[in-house]
Amino acid sequence: MRNILGIEFPQYIEGIGELKAFDGKRHSGTPFEAKLKSPNGRNNKIVESLEKAIELSGLRDGMTISFHHHFRNGDYIVNMVLETLAKMGFKDMVVAASSLTHCHAPMIEHIKSGVVKRIETSGLRGELANAVSAGLMDIPVIFRSHGGRAYAIASGELKIDVAFLGAPSCDCAGNVNGFNRDGDNSYDCGSLGYAMPDAEYADKTIILTNNIVPYPNTPCAIPEINVDYIVKVDEIGDPKGIVSGATRYTTNPRELKIAKMASDIMEHSGYFKNGFSFQTGTGGASLAVTRFLHDKMLKKGIKASFALGGITGAIAKLHEEGLIKKLLDVQDFDLEAVRSARENPFHCVVSGHHYAGSGIEGSAVDQLDMVVLSALEIDTNFNVNVLTGSDGVIRGAIGGHPDTASGAKMTIVVAPLIRGRIPTVLDKVNTIVTPGSTVDVFVTEYGAAVNPLRKDLIQKLTSVGIKLHTIEELKEISEQIVGKPKPVEYGEKIVGLVYYRDNSVIDVIKKV
Amino acid sequence: MRNILGIEFPQYIEGIGELKAFDGKRHSGTPFEAKLKSPNGRNNKIVESLEKAIELSGLRDGMTISFHHHFRNGDYIVNMVLETLAKMGFKDMVVAASSLTHCHAPMIEHIKSGVVKRIETSGLRGELANAVSAGLMDIPVIFRSHGGRAYAIASGELKIDVAFLGAPSCDCAGNVNGFNRDGDNSYDCGSLGYAMPDAEYADKTIILTNNIVPYPNTPCAIPEINVDYIVKVDEIGDPKGIVSGATRYTTNPRELKIAKMASDIMEHSGYFKNGFSFQTGTGGASLAVTRFLHDKMLKKGIKASFALGGITGAIAKLHEEGLIKKLLDVQDFDLEAVRSARENPFHCVVSGHHYAGSGIEGSAVDQLDMVVLSALEIDTNFNVNVLTGSDGVIRGAIGGHPDTASGAKMTIVVAPLIRGRIPTVLDKVNTIVTPGSTVDVFVTEYGAAVNPLRKDLIQKLTSVGIKLHTIEELKEISEQIVGKPKPVEYGEKIVGLVYYRDNSVIDVIKKV
Repeated sequence: MRNILGIEFPQYIEGIGELKAFDGKRHSGTPFEAKLKSPNGRNNKIVESLEKAIELSGLRDGMTISFHHHFRNGDYIVNMVLETLAKMGFKDMVVAASSLTHCHAPMIEHIKSGVVKRIETSGLRGELANAVSAGLMDIPVIFRSHGGRAYAIASGELKIDVAFLGAPSCDCAGNVNGFNRDGDNSYDCGSLGYAMPDAEYADKTIILTNNIVPYPNTPCAIPEINVDYIVKVDEIGDPKGIVSGATRYTTNPRELKIAKMASDIMEHSGYFKNGFSFQTGTGGASLAVTRFLHDKMLKKGIKASFALGGITGAIAKLHEEGLIKKLLDVQDFDLEAVRSARENPFHCVVSGHHYAGSGIEGSAVDQLDMVVLSALEIDTNFNVNVLTGSDGVIRGAIGGHPDTASGAKMTIVVAPLIRGRIPTVLDKVNTIVTPGSTVDVFVTEYGAAVNPLRKDLIQKLTSVGIKLHTIEELKEISEQIVGKPKPVEYGEKIVGLVYYRDNSVIDVIKKV
Repeated sequence: MRNILGIEFPQYIEGIGELKAFDGKRHSGTPFEAKLKSPNGRNNKIVESLEKAIELSGLRDGMTISFHHHFRNGDYIVNMVLETLAKMGFKDMVVAASSLTHCHAPMIEHIKSGVVKRIETSGLRGELANAVSAGLMDIPVIFRSHGGRAYAIASGELKIDVAFLGAPSCDCAGNVNGFNRDGDNSYDCGSLGYAMPDAEYADKTIILTNNIVPYPNTPCAIPEINVDYIVKVDEIGDPKGIVSGATRYTTNPRELKIAKMASDIMEHSGYFKNGFSFQTGTGGASLAVTRFLHDKMLKKGIKASFALGGITGAIAKLHEEGLIKKLLDVQDFDLEAVRSARENPFHCVVSGHHYAGSGIEGSAVDQLDMVVLSALEIDTNFNVNVLTGSDGVIRGAIGGHPDTASGAKMTIVVAPLIRGRIPTVLDKVNTIVTPGSTVDVFVTEYGAAVNPLRKDLIQKLTSVGIKLHTIEELKEISEQIVGKPKPVEYGEKIVGLVYYRDNSVIDVIKKV
């Protein structure tokens, strides 16, 4: 065998295998075959339209397309792509989104017309959720946790053919960021954590951006090596919906009471010591927990090693005050968090996989000491529902709930005991999202209950005078006030499958 | 079908497939099966010994193990691992290192004893190189460029079973860095770019570190999700060999003359304008080019958008002076570069894949305007050899030579015309590493020659009065001084296969 330079070599070598000959071409055999050298520049991945990018990607009917939810209720990408696919005549697509919300109601029409056949998501809200609950789809929606989704993508269980990822900034080669450091930053979403596994594992990745910035757009969330095509669009979303300006601090006395109790439990749990780690969410009570914790840290001279998850300005403030050494940020909830992620070297963007991935190699959730989570319902086995309302209709998202609950040494669920005359504690929740064996404490405005599995915690907390209830007692208190709720009447049709973080079925959602 | 919580669901759903039941265990069916929740902590990947990590990894005879070369001639990892494998009785291993050098001479014994069957590397030096050139191995060594290796790993052509990666810092979960920000930093190597693809794609990754640091070791080069086991060792290398203290500025008049000419050509090439990009190496002339360029940038008020590749303190200085906006750093050559990578937010570590990956998605080399490279030999077709000496013996490394030559709009090769009475320009180089079609300019102390393919460059340079030779003229000048060299006498046995960046055979190295 001889190559184009005249060098002779054997076609096969025992211990190595077949050899191929240098042919003086770049990527011979691909559609990109070209000269080895392009002195006028190369590798500009920007194509003229979304249609063109879709054509080049090789997308076919029935394939799986993916989206991220970092633009939240301001997202334009999902609707834009589905409308384009509809116009181009695509059918039977599987939509694998990291989450879907109110603004994605137009998907209903694409389901009816056969463009979308199946959905995977962390959550559903608004009209689309109502329609799915009412039996819109032939195939049940698969609900995965953020960590379960990352694991499914990395393990190949969820194979993404083409990822369509919106980006506040991208250079000509595809280095992508959740910030635009080179101009208009009103579309910044901060971390792009949930988009990173998609870009890494999808067969083809198409970036939709309103800001093409100079090369190299580094440091970047998604490196160019994971990007195939780039489309410049006028708008990727509505800035007002992408992040809220500032997260309001609650003055609701019920939320403050819950937060005070939760933070007292954290303080006396044995986990509150130098180098501890925690995650809190965005709900009123959760944010207030962060504030109470701040005061306790200052008072006791205790510092945290890291805070994890969706990051708020409140958490960023603790980092900037030196009370939290590092932030691992999978998603930003407000403009202050976005700013901190842009400015602070130890406020680091992590992928959904690094955050909560459920493979045996573990992830950051496995290093958490304490997490504070919300609940729509909890049952006497401490199983938690964050996905369906008391009417059985889908109205929420799994998020990282089961991931952090499983990883954290102490999982605290906070919720009002009664919401609008509906009790939170039930004999059995409508939908099990997080198994009770991973939930340690339930805190309400009427007091707290500790999972009887955690005798160590009960002992620690009662020894410092914290009065605990059993969860049955909390249920009774609520039933004395508002009575026992009537069970939801479901049909037979399964409209949703709830996957636990290992992608096993933990519950099903039936038509209401 | 019913899961452990009593939820009923169908075993199979059309459009989705087989479903699996939640069983209340973590990773059921794996050796790590455990409770869903471990309140006493989990996910400490530190194992007591290298032997234990090897056992757990499932390594078997004949498998492929990988190493990085960021500890250069100070590396202890390769020898330590091979010695352990020898003691444990392993045979027929394939060693896929990003590069090998003088300190790896002990591998000769492991080849003789059958522990090592085959080698892949970017280069070989010293005793090991001499022995391979003399016919030590039954199967030829495969030499790949840094970009070709990354592509081979990402595409699955080079399948790594277990990666053994040395790290100056690592936390209990496996977040790895080339710096230790939490204590003894005398083993810092800076970027771990060439280790990143290994960690990402290897079936199992074992980290060997002398510094276990607090979680989370972020920002990190290798995230915990790519790490399986961690072994604490006393020493990962000899700090003196890992990085040189400071790169000395040349006073050699021949090198200065070459550098002056090269920088003049860069200035007048048409590529020297605001936002240009470049890469220079560590040789005396290359470093001097950086200094001449610095003066030209200051004088003309021109700034670069980025510099790429192995980073030196000289390049870091330009970045810190604001003359280069961003650094993309795959490897650090001296302590000043390491410090800059640790301190400067826009001095970013990139993987070998992001640096030079040769897949159709491209990489940073494809955005380069100008690169300055060295050569051991160049022929009248501009083909370059950086791998074998004038005696035919292996004594170098491919590195990113063909990758950057192919990517850059202008590739300048600098070399003395004569080295110790041996001419650099030949009719045919001993080993073709970089094809002449990707080399644009050759600069020596006797003048420069431009590849006739680049009429545009010839026109630009001569129009400003730069006197050019043909490469044949340069060859004649040297032959007038030292005569025509005798061709090397090779045997028949192929001892090395030189792969181009697409992993085709561009040349073979025969026994001397």
